[in-house]
Amino acid sequence: MVVDKKEEIDSESSEQVVNPWEVSVKDDGRIDYDKIIDKFGCQRLDESLIDRVQRLTSRQPHVFLRRGVFFAHRDFNEILDAYERGDKFYLYTGRGPSSESLHLGHLIPFMFTKYLQEAFKVPLVIQITDDEKCIWKNLEPKDSKRLGRENVKDIIACGFDVTKTFIFSDFDNVGGAFYKNMVKVGKCAMAIYGFSGEDSIAKISFPPVQAAPSFPSSFPDLFPGKEKLRCLIPCAIDQDPYFRMTRDVAPRLGYNKPALIESSFFPALRGKNGKMSASDPNSAIYVTDTAEDIKKKINGAVSGGQDNKDDQNKYGANLEEYGEGRMLTGEVKKRLTQVLTEMVEKHRRARAAVTDEMVEAFMAARPLPSMFE
Amino acid sequence: MVVDKKEEIDSESSEQVVNPWEVSVKDDGRIDYDKIIDKFGCQRLDESLIDRVQRLTSRQPHVFLRRGVFFAHRDFNEILDAYERGDKFYLYTGRGPSSESLHLGHLIPFMFTKYLQEAFKVPLVIQITDDEKCIWKNLEPKDSKRLGRENVKDIIACGFDVTKTFIFSDFDNVGGAFYKNMVKVGKCAMAIYGFSGEDSIAKISFPPVQAAPSFPSSFPDLFPGKEKLRCLIPCAIDQDPYFRMTRDVAPRLGYNKPALIESSFFPALRGKNGKMSASDPNSAIYVTDTAEDIKKKINGAVSGGQDNKDDQNKYGANLEEYGEGRMLTGEVKKRLTQVLTEMVEKHRRARAAVTDEMVEAFMAARPLPSMFE
Repeated sequence: MVVDKKEEIDSESSEQVVNPWEVSVKDDGRIDYDKIIDKFGCQRLDESLIDRVQRLTSRQPHVFLRRGVFFAHRDFNEILDAYERGDKFYLYTGRGPSSESLHLGHLIPFMFTKYLQEAFKVPLVIQITDDEKCIWKNLEPKDSKRLGRENVKDIIACGFDVTKTFIFSDFDNVGGAFYKNMVKVGKCAMAIYGFSGEDSIAKISFPPVQAAPSFPSSFPDLFPGKEKLRCLIPCAIDQDPYFRMTRDVAPRLGYNKPALIESSFFPALRGKNGKMSASDPNSAIYVTDTAEDIKKKINGAVSGGQDNKDDQNKYGANLEEYGEGRMLTGEVKKRLTQVLTEMVEKHRRARAAVTDEMVEAFMAARPLPSMFE
Repeated sequence: MVVDKKEEIDSESSEQVVNPWEVSVKDDGRIDYDKIIDKFGCQRLDESLIDRVQRLTSRQPHVFLRRGVFFAHRDFNEILDAYERGDKFYLYTGRGPSSESLHLGHLIPFMFTKYLQEAFKVPLVIQITDDEKCIWKNLEPKDSKRLGRENVKDIIACGFDVTKTFIFSDFDNVGGAFYKNMVKVGKCAMAIYGFSGEDSIAKISFPPVQAAPSFPSSFPDLFPGKEKLRCLIPCAIDQDPYFRMTRDVAPRLGYNKPALIESSFFPALRGKNGKMSASDPNSAIYVTDTAEDIKKKINGAVSGGQDNKDDQNKYGANLEEYGEGRMLTGEVKKRLTQVLTEMVEKHRRARAAVTDEMVEAFMAARPLPSMFE
């Protein structure tokens, strides 16, 4: 039985809490990723592993690998071992549709997953957890589904290969073989995992929903006869507790443990929160922002000044960062504005070209014969 | 939010516990049903209500009503009010498939539900909770489904009208609109309802599965455009806590509360347990028992003697029952044997005639145009 308690799940000190439901950081807005790796017990994604990816895929590793955006993993080396022997695997990532339009932080796992799909030529399932957001954000199922569908268009715009990719909504897909795996996982996972008795049944019921796609038997239409296929999950580090539970449970069900490759958070433009957050528009650049919006946000960001006039009068600007050479100069801000504007405009054009027919094609339950070509 | 705690759910004194997961009784094997009604807060099914059923259906009320086997209810009077105004309702009952063959106690709700379906000419959904038994009995999903399918044949043998009846397995049916209602119910119900933090996620997740069929919107194929249809649930009294939660939650979802009509337990033939139990073969008469089995079980039952030779030597026979005229005489046992043998043989013939095609017909998701004729 999984006996994780809330205390053990959080990577927390007096200053830092990181779990799927909360990310709060130290007073200076920084996140101590070494401490998270220690606390969670995952492995650092080191240089030798990145070199190995380069050898196996015969292409330059993605910039998110080279720059340490994806910085931790679990059993990624085993996935590479298997790949080297000629065994395929599949990718699983997901999105909780909390807002109509995505910000750049949301695109990180999808940009990286697209690279993995192309480099390793493997199939991919993308879970839209519209049920999760209905439970946590007090949305009606129909509103959560609508947001999910809007998000799917942004995801498709990242350029996935429809012949190798299945995108699904939980509200549409939970049932049958998927539900059987939810029940199997739920039988092995204790309720005290990460919740208190004050939480709703729906919250406590959710972790098996996120666990199920880690097992190919949840998708009999997609992976017929491939029950032993291994799964690699690209995700942000805050999702680790869900998959730690999944990995604990897997051997008791006779299933392979999913492997993980985990990213740090996309830094917030301002404020005390360590990551871009959809609930704080000034912290984030949205894929719907105009060139002018982006310019204003970048110029107003990371200046060392306080968030508002009162705090600025009270505390003055924090010049430590500037003194240590870490503050962005006007020159750097200009270059950043240019790069992000191009990225956002490219995304906007791609998204405008996504039709309802394309959404249906990605979301159709189907055997995908070309998945393993 | 539902704030029921385990103490409040159980109808318990130092001697008596009744809830969906446990029925234990006083030392003399009797169950105090008046105390259950008080504790649960349901209503007694009185003579005037039974007379009203007779007037409205123009037929003699079922023997289980006349003899008080169904002895309690919630809002059954409102169902009759609506019926009198010309509004239809639908019936919902179910079965957790714990064993290959049913005993007579299991048939009680189905015999009574068949009467209600015929008398009121209303549609019926029957939930096979194969997921529940997989969770509580440590069965594999495939074994639980197989037991469920065997039980479905016994249920069909009770004589239900296929044009008005939908029988479904949770493992096959959870998903879509049904899952949406599970999430909605789960959001409103607190996890402390009836469980401790030591229970598995799967156990805590189950109550919304049993709640969902109380709402017609869980079955869009079955009840298109009939979202306001009221639901009447015939069940044994131990299931009341599930539906008390369901009734608490319903108004917050904009749904009608289901009404209930609740039975006492089928008395055990012997032993300290107050009801027939599939886990104690001597306590129960199975639908697969031969005439000889039944005769032996009846003759050995309720004799006042202890369950085994050691206890008999130690305590001797309990003759109190005999003294008060409650012990069955040889004459009564003979008549009982005859009645039950006829009932079991009739059931066996009916069950032998149930084909796989009939099972498919009852379990097919379909709009039922004749449901409201």
